[in-house]
Amino acid sequence: MTNVNEKKIDGKTKLVGLLATPIGHSLSPRMHNLGYSLKGLNYAYLAFEVGNEELEETVKGFKAAGVAGFNVSMPNKMKVLDYLDELDDSAKYSRASNTVVNRDGKLIGYNTDGLGYIRNLIEHGVELKGQKVTLVGSGGAATPIAIQFAQSGIREISIFARNDQFFGQAEENVNYINNEMKEFGVKANIFPLEDKESFRREVAESAILANGTSLGMKPLDHLSIVDETLDVLRKDLVVTDVVYNPQKSKLLTQAEEAGCTVINGLGMMLWQGALGFKLFTGEDMPIEEIKEIMFGEHK
Amino acid sequence: MTNVNEKKIDGKTKLVGLLATPIGHSLSPRMHNLGYSLKGLNYAYLAFEVGNEELEETVKGFKAAGVAGFNVSMPNKMKVLDYLDELDDSAKYSRASNTVVNRDGKLIGYNTDGLGYIRNLIEHGVELKGQKVTLVGSGGAATPIAIQFAQSGIREISIFARNDQFFGQAEENVNYINNEMKEFGVKANIFPLEDKESFRREVAESAILANGTSLGMKPLDHLSIVDETLDVLRKDLVVTDVVYNPQKSKLLTQAEEAGCTVINGLGMMLWQGALGFKLFTGEDMPIEEIKEIMFGEHK
Repeated sequence: MTNVNEKKIDGKTKLVGLLATPIGHSLSPRMHNLGYSLKGLNYAYLAFEVGNEELEETVKGFKAAGVAGFNVSMPNKMKVLDYLDELDDSAKYSRASNTVVNRDGKLIGYNTDGLGYIRNLIEHGVELKGQKVTLVGSGGAATPIAIQFAQSGIREISIFARNDQFFGQAEENVNYINNEMKEFGVKANIFPLEDKESFRREVAESAILANGTSLGMKPLDHLSIVDETLDVLRKDLVVTDVVYNPQKSKLLTQAEEAGCTVINGLGMMLWQGALGFKLFTGEDMPIEEIKEIMFGEHK
Repeated sequence: MTNVNEKKIDGKTKLVGLLATPIGHSLSPRMHNLGYSLKGLNYAYLAFEVGNEELEETVKGFKAAGVAGFNVSMPNKMKVLDYLDELDDSAKYSRASNTVVNRDGKLIGYNTDGLGYIRNLIEHGVELKGQKVTLVGSGGAATPIAIQFAQSGIREISIFARNDQFFGQAEENVNYINNEMKEFGVKANIFPLEDKESFRREVAESAILANGTSLGMKPLDHLSIVDETLDVLRKDLVVTDVVYNPQKSKLLTQAEEAGCTVINGLGMMLWQGALGFKLFTGEDMPIEEIKEIMFGEHK
């Protein structure tokens, strides 16, 4: 009677939540719960279908119930700031939080999207200090990357955005970096993605070319931010992509062929989770094991 | 890399909570989680250290987050009524709820403590219709039993309580049954537990003698509501106890020796959980398997 596959949840199991909608396709529950199992930690990571309407009461309730913390995703990353007690710089400057920690009854907001991206570059040995970066995009993935780049010692960031509703957000990001983040001494520029001459020039001056758009992600995996005819990729360029499905996007295939250092979106995704994992539990997430289990070739 | 003991929690796992303080010793998390494992249900039952102060925000937050439901225990069973949308009769008449179900965004309160006790008697084949009952106690366990007895077709209930602060609660229960529950046609009487002559008479007239106090529970396991010298136990009496630790209390040992039908507190505890389990998940809790695993002799 005892070989029951009893879940290791008991009266002391701590809750970590994910507040988002839709929540169906998030990888976070599996990633965090795998980490708890691998490390033998008494936590459970559950997802809650919560939008802006339900956010305030949920956040206050989770605080009152003493949960360990929660991740916040679309559409709540900006709205959640209204209900937190303190903001880490990563959330303050990006004006968005994806990770909220309950520290002795105070809710503290972080943005590990940007932190995770930068951490992944550092883990790959990429030098940031004094460098120039070209970033494509101004949406939910690109914005925290831009803001965290600005806090990471780079000298100049050139942002390219499509000449549609994203351009307004790109302008906002550039103005924010130039006006509200002066203490970091970084200069931000903006260009329309359609301006191929500027793109060629800015990439040529940059050490890093970063794609922060979903271009190249399935089902857009036949697309790339780099035009085939645009000869901008060179050996000493680091090319990064937020896309991890496919793990080698068209951009990274092009970059690899040109001899660039390439970094896909998997590390950013894993590191944003790992930084949250550490904040929630105080323990290091076993990134390599999780990567192998969730994304290994034998899976 | 795949024989990891991965918890079966994913983005679709539903939360059931327990709101109480202290929560350290509750059997509910293990009982419910065992049930989910045995039935392959995608739920997780977690306990939250919540008192009256945190109750309102927690309840509102759990409602906003769309949890499946929650159990409520000390000290929140009465206070929680203020925050619910609807009350089942079991909660309405006992003015307390231990089980709150989220039905399409409405929180509905039940009291499965009383329902579980009565259900367990019925499962044991005990006849209630038209019977007289003697109940000892007026605390947190005895009160829902008294109120649920009153809704279950019995004719008369005699309540014995110690002549201390419990006597006032006993008076309140008796008055409530006689005045507010007239539609059930049951008569309630009150006596001090010290009045041994009345006790002998009322038990003699009763089909059921029920202990609703912690007398007989460890470390009070040397005590019984029935005085050794008081010859009130007879073969056709049903004797029930809320105590399940020890499983055979001194009262039940005395009753068994006298040839009574005896029913310990285990069934009530399991049934209050099983009724909640059914309300939360729509599925029957595998009571017998859980009883064997949690309380079997080989454990």
